[in-house]
Amino acid sequence: MNKIKILDCTLRDGGYYTHWDFDKKLVEEYAKSIEQLPVDYVEVGYRSITLNGYLGKYFYCPIYVLEELKQWMPSKKLVVILNEKDIRPEHVEELLEPCIPYITLVRIAIDPGNMVRAILLAKEVKKLGFEVGFNVMYMSDWKKDDSFLNLLDGLENTIDYFYMVDSYGGVMPKDIIDIIRTVRSKIKIPIGFHGHNNLEMALANTITAMQEGCAIVDATITGMGRGAGNLKTELLLTYLEREGKIEVSFDNLSATVNSFENLKLDYNWGTSLPYMFSGAHSLPQKQVMEWVGLNRYPLGSILNALNNQKIAIEDNIKLPVFENVSKFKSALVLGGGPTSQIHQDAIKKILELHKDEFCLIHAGVRNIINYTTINNLQYYGLVGFEPQDVFQVIDSNQIDSKYFVYPPFPRKMGVSIPDNITAQAYELAELQFTEVDTDSPMAIAIQTALNLGVDDIYFIGFDGYDVNINQNQFVIANENQKIINDLIAYKKHLNICSLTPTKYENLKLNSIYSLI
Amino acid sequence: MNKIKILDCTLRDGGYYTHWDFDKKLVEEYAKSIEQLPVDYVEVGYRSITLNGYLGKYFYCPIYVLEELKQWMPSKKLVVILNEKDIRPEHVEELLEPCIPYITLVRIAIDPGNMVRAILLAKEVKKLGFEVGFNVMYMSDWKKDDSFLNLLDGLENTIDYFYMVDSYGGVMPKDIIDIIRTVRSKIKIPIGFHGHNNLEMALANTITAMQEGCAIVDATITGMGRGAGNLKTELLLTYLEREGKIEVSFDNLSATVNSFENLKLDYNWGTSLPYMFSGAHSLPQKQVMEWVGLNRYPLGSILNALNNQKIAIEDNIKLPVFENVSKFKSALVLGGGPTSQIHQDAIKKILELHKDEFCLIHAGVRNIINYTTINNLQYYGLVGFEPQDVFQVIDSNQIDSKYFVYPPFPRKMGVSIPDNITAQAYELAELQFTEVDTDSPMAIAIQTALNLGVDDIYFIGFDGYDVNINQNQFVIANENQKIINDLIAYKKHLNICSLTPTKYENLKLNSIYSLI
Repeated sequence: MNKIKILDCTLRDGGYYTHWDFDKKLVEEYAKSIEQLPVDYVEVGYRSITLNGYLGKYFYCPIYVLEELKQWMPSKKLVVILNEKDIRPEHVEELLEPCIPYITLVRIAIDPGNMVRAILLAKEVKKLGFEVGFNVMYMSDWKKDDSFLNLLDGLENTIDYFYMVDSYGGVMPKDIIDIIRTVRSKIKIPIGFHGHNNLEMALANTITAMQEGCAIVDATITGMGRGAGNLKTELLLTYLEREGKIEVSFDNLSATVNSFENLKLDYNWGTSLPYMFSGAHSLPQKQVMEWVGLNRYPLGSILNALNNQKIAIEDNIKLPVFENVSKFKSALVLGGGPTSQIHQDAIKKILELHKDEFCLIHAGVRNIINYTTINNLQYYGLVGFEPQDVFQVIDSNQIDSKYFVYPPFPRKMGVSIPDNITAQAYELAELQFTEVDTDSPMAIAIQTALNLGVDDIYFIGFDGYDVNINQNQFVIANENQKIINDLIAYKKHLNICSLTPTKYENLKLNSIYSLI
Repeated sequence: MNKIKILDCTLRDGGYYTHWDFDKKLVEEYAKSIEQLPVDYVEVGYRSITLNGYLGKYFYCPIYVLEELKQWMPSKKLVVILNEKDIRPEHVEELLEPCIPYITLVRIAIDPGNMVRAILLAKEVKKLGFEVGFNVMYMSDWKKDDSFLNLLDGLENTIDYFYMVDSYGGVMPKDIIDIIRTVRSKIKIPIGFHGHNNLEMALANTITAMQEGCAIVDATITGMGRGAGNLKTELLLTYLEREGKIEVSFDNLSATVNSFENLKLDYNWGTSLPYMFSGAHSLPQKQVMEWVGLNRYPLGSILNALNNQKIAIEDNIKLPVFENVSKFKSALVLGGGPTSQIHQDAIKKILELHKDEFCLIHAGVRNIINYTTINNLQYYGLVGFEPQDVFQVIDSNQIDSKYFVYPPFPRKMGVSIPDNITAQAYELAELQFTEVDTDSPMAIAIQTALNLGVDDIYFIGFDGYDVNINQNQFVIANENQKIINDLIAYKKHLNICSLTPTKYENLKLNSIYSLI
């Protein structure tokens, strides 16, 4: 444990939260702080061929960026990483030769199943003179199959570091000890450890790895990194300083920690119950990250979905199918925007005037309480993880006039149905008009209207969002717009319009007061 | 590790953040969740004689509260804790006899130096038939002196659990192993472990304690607890479930975790660099909690203060003393409120009209940039951890007309002085007019005015706060009011008034425009 090397990969691993873009002043401060800290290697991002979709500055690391980083960190060994699944030997020269003046170590992220291909890639990288690191994923699965290790025999001159990557964040110190002993029995390459913090075991595991003779360990400032994140650099340094192994300039450390703590308020990385659960059961955290990040699903639903994955069932319940039956000429589809409240009296008046022609279809639960007393049939487009207490206002005497409609089976999050509405709970056979496969109460409400064979779909309370919206609202606004576009394309002969002001496009606009 | 008992002490330990008050619905949800979880004991708060200051519901745990909690958790063993430093044997009957129907275990928080007294207290508690737990603090110090353990010999029938409390959050698994072996060599009482999470080692340490044969371990939902907080109950349960030791109803767990996660957004418990540092070096986290919680000090200043404590120096710098000299008739003391901006032209006009009689004293740095061009002498009441870059606007040619005044030596946070103002940096000999010992730019500015021998102190830009303020603003508003009161009491013959509207009390009000 005397000469342990430390690799900080904040920008590379933190980029999962920011699409690999960071404020330039933040990066400058980070780099200048790191320059003063006892960190040996700094991994600044990926190098990659062009991939689909937007991936930012530190995913491609153009040469001018590397040059700038090297100016800020002249004493550090800089590192880039390649995703083995995307990069082939023929890409190496173009991607890496221009990096030679700035980069010391090239790491390769590897699924152990692709080890043969990875070795060919490594040899190509080594030809350019770089140190080469193998970041081999899924270390908790190696107990089942470690045959890939045999392929690495004799490659000590090609591969400088063999990293064990705790991809799921579920390994414990005893696993570290076992796995290191296995690895060491087969290969002579210096070992590295990249820990995740799902179970808050990143430091304990890393200490064990160091005690077992690992040569190098990874960390990131504030633990910023995919999913539950990594070992925190500030924690590792504080620990090693206390142990007398290193000296730390806490002034430099605290400045950059402070800045990343501020960034964390926006992105909220770090562990939480869903990440603990996925870590404990070796479930992929990519999906957890998406679910947690969207801020749409309650914790219980995410756990439910993870639990379904773990025990390999599709969904926790199968409901009766909501059949197609032509009952009404018109549907009022009610969203949760402010205008759904403002024009409440007018909505009730329309329903009263046209009791046999109109039904009310709620998209979500926002307005349940406002319509407990009307006599029209009511439908509720639900997704299955609504707060249970909002259903308490539903009178059991009136349950027959209400239909609770859930998405088609199987639902990845499962559903949770309050006891008092179970008798009237149904699921759609399918979503016919849109490819949107997320859990959208709006889409369920619209499909319900289509199943009821209506000629007119009148939207109320789909007000749209202001320009100044957060990431989650942005996702939902885009999704709603797509649902509207899909509906219009699906049934051109339908009369589709909004009866209240809306920021959504392509939607014909009438006034709610013209129907009274 | 087969029959480990779990004690959840969320309300008791979390109360450090909320003065032991919690929303009643939150407590009900928590209790009903815990009732469904594999937790054996639930510590719901303190019992105590009347202490000074406000301490809430779960610090005193009146009997009706215990009754309610027991109704929500009929299957759980409920626990209260006594602070040994406040409670004597003669208090026991009144405090604990009414608890008999509801409480199973009474714990006692003990400084090992008071062990003799604690044993007398324990005997009194045991007479009432309770299980008795000893929560003995500062376990990382026991290596220096474990003689108190000898006092516990033969008390197996009095004390049911002997808890090792990692008060500083700095112990590591190897310490756990060493200390448990020492304890076990001396006493036969079942051992418990209460871990803190400063170094994110709470789970790793607790696992070690369980493997070493501990009978009982503590945890709190979301780790809510003093300073960096505790082992997270949800993490412990997730881990033990994975290991096949217990079954967990994740639905119940996630509901209450979710609610406490929301509360955490207000109180922000959990570890951070200052807690890591204090944990690593066995420094008391009570003070760190105050500094971090107040949100007043930058991370670097807190680390600086902790580092000064660690190396036992008072302060990092001694400055020349700012002498008493009567120079001006009047001081404009400038705060940072909105009116300091709005009436800027008037302030400059007054200073221009009365160049020899008036000086400008800034309380803090908010307005530095607005007065770079005036010709009057300017003083800056500072505290030493202002952001460095705000001083860049100060022209080195004009440095002689500016005085930078810091608090009296020694300053617990140290000071950080930008290079370009060092030549004109001074410290006060003392704060004469007020007992406020916090770092208040307002107090420094006023003392500067007093040292300058002025007859008039005119406040500008001390607007006060709205009713709807956060905890930090509340502390500062109260502090400012106290400073004003102290000033008025200190020098009754001074002409003290505010020239702009203010919400502070006792301050005479004139108009800034009456002076022009």
